Amino acid sequence: MKFTSFTLDGRESFGVIFSEEDGYVYDLKKIADFRSEETNPANLQEWISLYGEKSEEFIREMRSSKINFGQFRYSMDEIILRSPIPKPIKNIFCVGKNYAAHAIEMGSEADIPDFPIIFTKPPTCVIATHESIYSHPNVTTQLDYEGELAVVIGKKGRAISKENALDYVFGYTIINDVSARDLQKRHKQFFMGKSLDTSCPMGPVILHKSAVNDPHNLSIVTRVNGEVRQNGNTKDFIFDIPELLEVISQAMTLEPGDIIATGTPSGVGKGFKPPRFLKPGDRVEITIEGLGTLVNTVK
Amino acid sequence: MKFTSFTLDGRESFGVIFSEEDGYVYDLKKIADFRSEETNPANLQEWISLYGEKSEEFIREMRSSKINFGQFRYSMDEIILRSPIPKPIKNIFCVGKNYAAHAIEMGSEADIPDFPIIFTKPPTCVIATHESIYSHPNVTTQLDYEGELAVVIGKKGRAISKENALDYVFGYTIINDVSARDLQKRHKQFFMGKSLDTSCPMGPVILHKSAVNDPHNLSIVTRVNGEVRQNGNTKDFIFDIPELLEVISQAMTLEPGDIIATGTPSGVGKGFKPPRFLKPGDRVEITIEGLGTLVNTVK
Repeated sequence: MKFTSFTLDGRESFGVIFSEEDGYVYDLKKIADFRSEETNPANLQEWISLYGEKSEEFIREMRSSKINFGQFRYSMDEIILRSPIPKPIKNIFCVGKNYAAHAIEMGSEADIPDFPIIFTKPPTCVIATHESIYSHPNVTTQLDYEGELAVVIGKKGRAISKENALDYVFGYTIINDVSARDLQKRHKQFFMGKSLDTSCPMGPVILHKSAVNDPHNLSIVTRVNGEVRQNGNTKDFIFDIPELLEVISQAMTLEPGDIIATGTPSGVGKGFKPPRFLKPGDRVEITIEGLGTLVNTVK
Repeated sequence: MKFTSFTLDGRESFGVIFSEEDGYVYDLKKIADFRSEETNPANLQEWISLYGEKSEEFIREMRSSKINFGQFRYSMDEIILRSPIPKPIKNIFCVGKNYAAHAIEMGSEADIPDFPIIFTKPPTCVIATHESIYSHPNVTTQLDYEGELAVVIGKKGRAISKENALDYVFGYTIINDVSARDLQKRHKQFFMGKSLDTSCPMGPVILHKSAVNDPHNLSIVTRVNGEVRQNGNTKDFIFDIPELLEVISQAMTLEPGDIIATGTPSGVGKGFKPPRFLKPGDRVEITIEGLGTLVNTVK
């Protein structure tokens, strides 16, 4: 079961995809309007907030009801995918150096962190699969890719314990944590180098957690112009997802629709000697097992 | 002319205060509803987005119209002030080490930055004047205050030039950039130590820019239990407001309602030898010329 946002004939909506074979997306916004819920969710973030915890139940009930939901479905060919959460309600949380080999390629073994390193990217930099990453040639000459598994939060929580942490997860998506290495260094804190417009491709979909057997054993591959640059597996996380949620939420409330990018494996452009930064025309594809491929071209 | 958000008999709204002598707040939400604008703003952030640029004109027109606006005003004693923007649409931008004396107290002269240092605080940590700062005793033993002037953005912009930067400002407010120094250090990037729930007191109001003669000559005083700890002036900024807006927006879109805290002068708790961190019962008051006083007690 996958969720995403889309545009159809200029109208923005969001929906659920039951299977690739089925080939349809069911318009959850129209379905909610049709059922005239008390509070109609305007977007997928609001839907997760309202139904995140009982999404399986909601969908099961919907499918078994007598209403003909065929009237609310579209072929995947008809729609244009947007980022699953095009306008997050706060900055995206990002984890720095969460794979040892990446920490080392960015510096040395001394860079392997003892505690999670957290920084953010603003909602303004989110784009969808197949949208363009702008190269910002007047601002940076060191634009880099970072393929990452991202966790989407399903319910509000603070002081979440490792043991229950996965109860707070709605699903998973892919993020390209595009980074301007020169700005990242010049401004000391990572934020400026991580926040350029279009520097957060996200998608193509959110895979519901019920479809993920083990989020800590997913292959993650980044290709630039077809060449494999990153070939990692989430089993190599330094801090796994329950630990990240426990640490981040220890005194900070997490909310439905929050997005936490879990860090990137080794193989980023800056890690090569000489570095291999992105240039206009480059096509970046990030594939995570079960989640599909996030594709963006630099312009 | 000041703007703020408030609660009256449990109803959340927002309004404008023409003068302290007048002693009234005019409910802009009710006025917009009454005029049945096409798009009724639900909160002050949306109002700024719709009317930010022409707020003076809007208010003038409102005051000169034949409608009796007395029906939409409340005495300041009746309302409970909320943070002017209680739920920002993204993280608050913060500038690190923007006063040389503060950079030195946090380390040495080598810490005076050559480029603005930018980090963020999430919307979940915003509280109003007179609300309590929670001490999070299980998470930090080094809770600190930072009195700051904050800029509220009035219109959308990218690649803003210094010359026009003040056109993008709606007004100014006060922020206490409450910081857990131990977390700030342990997690390398500042974010974790800056983001605990209740760690962003904001208010009491937004002072419209038309009422600020020179934002680069405002005294800023922080008192803890009545004792002056910080006694600075925004004339000592390393990077002034036009420069901050130019740098931040060089490749990142700023939006109406965005909040940029401009950094804190010297005198933070960590700067004392031995350090003087906050403890339950402490009353923190931050006063900026013309903007009033932001008051919060640690609990």
